[in-house]
Amino acid sequence: MPSSRPFVSLTTDFGVAYSGICAGVIYSIVPDATLLVLSDQVTQYAIREGALLLRQGLPYLPVGVHVGIVDPGVGTPRQPIALETRRGDLLVGPDNGLLMPAAERLGGIVRTHLLDNPDYRLPKVSTTFHGRDIFAPAAGHLALGVDLARLGPATDPLPLDLPAATATPGRLIAPVLFVDGFGSLILAAGHGDLVTAFGPLEYGTELMIGDTPVPYQEAFGAVTPGEPLLWIDSSGTLGLAVNQGSAARRFGLDTDSTLQITTI
Amino acid sequence: MPSSRPFVSLTTDFGVAYSGICAGVIYSIVPDATLLVLSDQVTQYAIREGALLLRQGLPYLPVGVHVGIVDPGVGTPRQPIALETRRGDLLVGPDNGLLMPAAERLGGIVRTHLLDNPDYRLPKVSTTFHGRDIFAPAAGHLALGVDLARLGPATDPLPLDLPAATATPGRLIAPVLFVDGFGSLILAAGHGDLVTAFGPLEYGTELMIGDTPVPYQEAFGAVTPGEPLLWIDSSGTLGLAVNQGSAARRFGLDTDSTLQITTI
Amino acid sequence: MPSSRPFVSLTTDFGVAYSGICAGVIYSIVPDATLLVLSDQVTQYAIREGALLLRQGLPYLPVGVHVGIVDPGVGTPRQPIALETRRGDLLVGPDNGLLMPAAERLGGIVRTHLLDNPDYRLPKVSTTFHGRDIFAPAAGHLALGVDLARLGPATDPLPLDLPAATATPGRLIAPVLFVDGFGSLILAAGHGDLVTAFGPLEYGTELMIGDTPVPYQEAFGAVTPGEPLLWIDSSGTLGLAVNQGSAARRFGLDTDSTLQITTI
Repeated sequence: MPSSRPFVSLTTDFGVAYSGICAGVIYSIVPDATLLVLSDQVTQYAIREGALLLRQGLPYLPVGVHVGIVDPGVGTPRQPIALETRRGDLLVGPDNGLLMPAAERLGGIVRTHLLDNPDYRLPKVSTTFHGRDIFAPAAGHLALGVDLARLGPATDPLPLDLPAATATPGRLIAPVLFVDGFGSLILAAGHGDLVTAFGPLEYGTELMIGDTPVPYQEAFGAVTPGEPLLWIDSSGTLGLAVNQGSAARRFGLDTDSTLQITTI
Repeated sequence: MPSSRPFVSLTTDFGVAYSGICAGVIYSIVPDATLLVLSDQVTQYAIREGALLLRQGLPYLPVGVHVGIVDPGVGTPRQPIALETRRGDLLVGPDNGLLMPAAERLGGIVRTHLLDNPDYRLPKVSTTFHGRDIFAPAAGHLALGVDLARLGPATDPLPLDLPAATATPGRLIAPVLFVDGFGSLILAAGHGDLVTAFGPLEYGTELMIGDTPVPYQEAFGAVTPGEPLLWIDSSGTLGLAVNQGSAARRFGLDTDSTLQITTI
Repeated sequence: MPSSRPFVSLTTDFGVAYSGICAGVIYSIVPDATLLVLSDQVTQYAIREGALLLRQGLPYLPVGVHVGIVDPGVGTPRQPIALETRRGDLLVGPDNGLLMPAAERLGGIVRTHLLDNPDYRLPKVSTTFHGRDIFAPAAGHLALGVDLARLGPATDPLPLDLPAATATPGRLIAPVLFVDGFGSLILAAGHGDLVTAFGPLEYGTELMIGDTPVPYQEAFGAVTPGEPLLWIDSSGTLGLAVNQGSAARRFGLDTDSTLQITTI
């Protein structure tokens, strides 16, 4: 059941109203768009959190034009870009690494272009709201079928700086990448890091976080409500959660914390 | 003005991003869907609140496929189900009572089926995100017209456990069902309970909550801003509110509190 | 690329669920609508904030039916209205000034009508939820093409009471109109007021707020993260912000505060 309606998604740290204005600009250009707000609630200025949400979410969205805006550098010389993925998506946003993990997950980058052609911006571009004045119009025109190369010259996008885990026998040091809406801590570590540190783990095995034993489990429901667990989330990433509670509150950790996991 | 575009709604305690991923899965299956997020802000794990919102809201939505997910039991043996209502809707969600009050309000249940056919799930089903892997794909396929019976065998859905009011002459004991976004307390009591306790009440009659006199009124605007009132809300349920304020804060009450109302 | 799908927007202080019910009513009447929630997060009962958001946002949305509901007077004799703008929009909401700044920005008002024809309301109108029972159905029928005059008799809408700045040489007294989601203070002053008080200002010029020097800048990024700036926002309004921070918190100001800006 193909659709003639182009698919556009929006992921921002703008909150509902400023995201809504961007959506209005997109609908003004492409009235038949199907537009999905993947999130308007990324933590403000948290490029890493936005990047990981895009990486987690975009594979589940239809091929389309996906706008990502977490842009502490708006009004500075950072560049606006759009890039094409091997899956066929067009990702639009600031050149600050935000789009890179998702682009890689969508098969890698085919080409990247700057958004500097004034024909595909609003007539008046402010210094503070490029979401409305540059990114949304670019997305609208791309969704209409304008070729990426017409929006500006080719460029090389900047990478995203992501911290990495350190796994040694019996010990895994894992930076917190972000805290999700349930208070679960998403860590810069995957199944391989766990195996490097602790060998092949069976569900139920207890590890230590500080002086708290925490079992490695397959599902939240495997522990009593209020109890913590380590689990591999649905995108292959290690997380620390509390069943029906907040691991961030329970362990007093936040984005930019680092977690040390040891054997019992 | 009929539409060939199937209507799908989503009601979750996921917040915007995880609800957005579910929406992406639905659009990937049925690109021409009209998709409405009735709520992504149900209090986390509050099955009762989600159930009552679905009961209150779905009658005002078009006949369609309505996904409800408040699912503290994800990853445990609780079953995923879909049920058909007499109005013609298909309700999709966990078999934990969440869908039952809405189903009753929509004319009652015609049939209920388990969602265990892997053809109508994502290829890989996680233990923690059934919204994305089971419920959203089921909704998408149902919206495309797949018959409910193809998704799994018939089953009997579990009921929802709801507290009830106790009305005796001069006294109404009413559990708080939930607190809405305005801080109004929605009570497990209706007009009949009021009449049993206090006889036929005229608007303006004062009742007592603790040692605070509170008038029974038709509308918030009937009392001065900052003043409390008892009223029958638009779905026939007794509520305690403060005009332009929060009854929860004013009376120090919350979900799971019980309110005692007496004559003056 | 014209669309046969009518465009409807919703701006409310209802939160997601009650806005979602209004959207459901609109879709029930006009299934092929393109519906955008510009905001469901206006501060509760903050008519002025809602009015300014509508003024800022609607010019960027397609011509259509725009519902605005911030309605502390629901259930009192305040009237429900719809008005036609010179741009061709139909604005629907309570007659409390909410729609007026946007109407002016959209070219001015062509005509205003009361919404009292029961044919274009829900069959049962509650005293507490006119969004669902009066405004959403009116919007749906207008989106279907029903003429405004059929909804009720012509009327004169009430104005919005907005505070004004006082600019004298060397001093600008500017009331705070509202605080946006980033904690930036939007002031009742524009570029002309700045010039009246301080002459033609170059970017980088410092002014004083209390004993804090604050530069007038073109963009947030022109100051170090954590530092304040005065800037003219994308709708021509003076604002006080903190780059990647909250000016409201930094200066201890809120809606209804008044700011005094002087020369250094």
